[in-house]
Amino acid sequence: MKEFDLIKRYFTEQAVKRKDVILGIGDDCALLQPAERQHIAVTTDTLVAGVHFPESTEPRAIGHKAVAVNLSDLSAMGAEPTWLSLALTLPEIDEQWVAEFCCGVFELCEYYNVQLIGGDTTQGPLSITITAQGLTPVDKYITRSGANAGDWLYVTGDLGDAALALQHLQGKVNVAEQYKEQIFDKLDYPKPRVLVGQVLRDYATSAIDISDGLISDLGHICQASNVGANIVLDDLPISDIMNETLGKTAAIDVALKGGDDYELLFTVSEDNKVGMETALINTGVAITCIGQLNGSEKITTTMDNKPVSINSQGFEHFSKVDT
Amino acid sequence: MKEFDLIKRYFTEQAVKRKDVILGIGDDCALLQPAERQHIAVTTDTLVAGVHFPESTEPRAIGHKAVAVNLSDLSAMGAEPTWLSLALTLPEIDEQWVAEFCCGVFELCEYYNVQLIGGDTTQGPLSITITAQGLTPVDKYITRSGANAGDWLYVTGDLGDAALALQHLQGKVNVAEQYKEQIFDKLDYPKPRVLVGQVLRDYATSAIDISDGLISDLGHICQASNVGANIVLDDLPISDIMNETLGKTAAIDVALKGGDDYELLFTVSEDNKVGMETALINTGVAITCIGQLNGSEKITTTMDNKPVSINSQGFEHFSKVDT
Repeated sequence: MKEFDLIKRYFTEQAVKRKDVILGIGDDCALLQPAERQHIAVTTDTLVAGVHFPESTEPRAIGHKAVAVNLSDLSAMGAEPTWLSLALTLPEIDEQWVAEFCCGVFELCEYYNVQLIGGDTTQGPLSITITAQGLTPVDKYITRSGANAGDWLYVTGDLGDAALALQHLQGKVNVAEQYKEQIFDKLDYPKPRVLVGQVLRDYATSAIDISDGLISDLGHICQASNVGANIVLDDLPISDIMNETLGKTAAIDVALKGGDDYELLFTVSEDNKVGMETALINTGVAITCIGQLNGSEKITTTMDNKPVSINSQGFEHFSKVDT
Repeated sequence: MKEFDLIKRYFTEQAVKRKDVILGIGDDCALLQPAERQHIAVTTDTLVAGVHFPESTEPRAIGHKAVAVNLSDLSAMGAEPTWLSLALTLPEIDEQWVAEFCCGVFELCEYYNVQLIGGDTTQGPLSITITAQGLTPVDKYITRSGANAGDWLYVTGDLGDAALALQHLQGKVNVAEQYKEQIFDKLDYPKPRVLVGQVLRDYATSAIDISDGLISDLGHICQASNVGANIVLDDLPISDIMNETLGKTAAIDVALKGGDDYELLFTVSEDNKVGMETALINTGVAITCIGQLNGSEKITTTMDNKPVSINSQGFEHFSKVDT
């Protein structure tokens, strides 16, 4: 099958459903006409086989995850996702693989009314780069830099399950058979917190999505906002599976440092705390207050109201060459 | 060096110069606010080492080319380039390489007032994916599908020099020493026809950029516009270097089928022919009328006013698995 046929068959069959897409896939460019008085949010993420997902990952999960991690970035900005550009590099054409991959991509696109507007298919080692775009009303967006000392620190969902699944795959821990489906769902099919992000633009002083680990990504907020933070380890949302499999201490460590959570970490002022909590009830997503910002330049942790020291390394690519 | 430091150092040092960029690199997303009454044109292109450029290509040329091929797509739409998202996958961190690559990227960005608004750096086999965006006034854009029988067929610049350079690298031909610099400049530093594209939105009925070869890309216009075309081979713009190195017949073949030209192929009605030619004089880019569209469903060629048959295969990725 020729490249153009491949692209045509799997990527152009999706009908253009969004009215702000003047021209979809099939010309030199797509053409968009966003509603007026909107900011456009743009993010790009690449997933490389063997680096960002295990080679054994099923193609539908790869498609899902490639979209989800980008929608997660839009959510952290408070943006409503709208358009997607997909660059797929494949070692060889495998129709079954492409069909399943597309299934993962389109399921998420349809659910969030996101339109695939273009892309490129090339031959090479498996990797996926997506540029996702979204909209926020003018001046209604959340950055990493708006947090203040005294703000409360929140996180959505549970922490560490995806990292636990990865550790199981790597043979470092053994997850009981009855828990595998649940934790692999977290690793392979992360849920971007799209609705939460849009609610938060009325309440949060800052937000980021946790892709590199809680400590690492909290560090980005602290640095950008020029604040410190204390995390109350007793309050971290950790699943029973994590506690049972790893024990409490190791579970906390994974919750703090494990990557791939794609939960939102955000801050809210004392005045907006109750309003935010009420507004988020309708999203159906659990949130947990895990600490508070302060005027120091450090991230500290406490347990039973006593200071506990942590190694603040989160996940970094290229870490092997950094020794 | 950590990933974040690498990105910060090379990609965030570029100041935000465009007023429509509310927030540049450094948060979960960039934020844009385009002027009203504009369409946004979006295109994505991936370059993989060993597939889209020889492994030996100098990093500055790779950076240049990755930007140029995307600006070329915007030009074919008549759009003014504005913003760029860059995903760079590198086998290892090589500061010198990254610095030179960025030099190639930023030279072109600065020349065309394009802002790098985000990206991702990952570890893996060398490849670059760029999503480029641009603006056109509402309903002022050029597609592949607007051409009509009777329209004249034009091309910018010369054809085939880049393919000749590639053939030299592959040991298939030998280009004389004194010509090498000139033809490798065509292969490594293609010039996107940005100004021509913007002028053409007032005149052209269709346009495409020639990345896969003249015949192949003309085929896209013919298919999308439901027309046929005849190319007058005597009129193809072929450089003296091509004719001298390959002889006239082989030079025509390369001009028809060679990829990587990144010239614009466009069509214009009889009524707009003179106006278009006059308007393009100020761009300083040579254009050549190479044929005419007709009501057939074929692409034909003539020489000395006689039909000549051609094999209509242009460049395709994955062609190896298609035998």
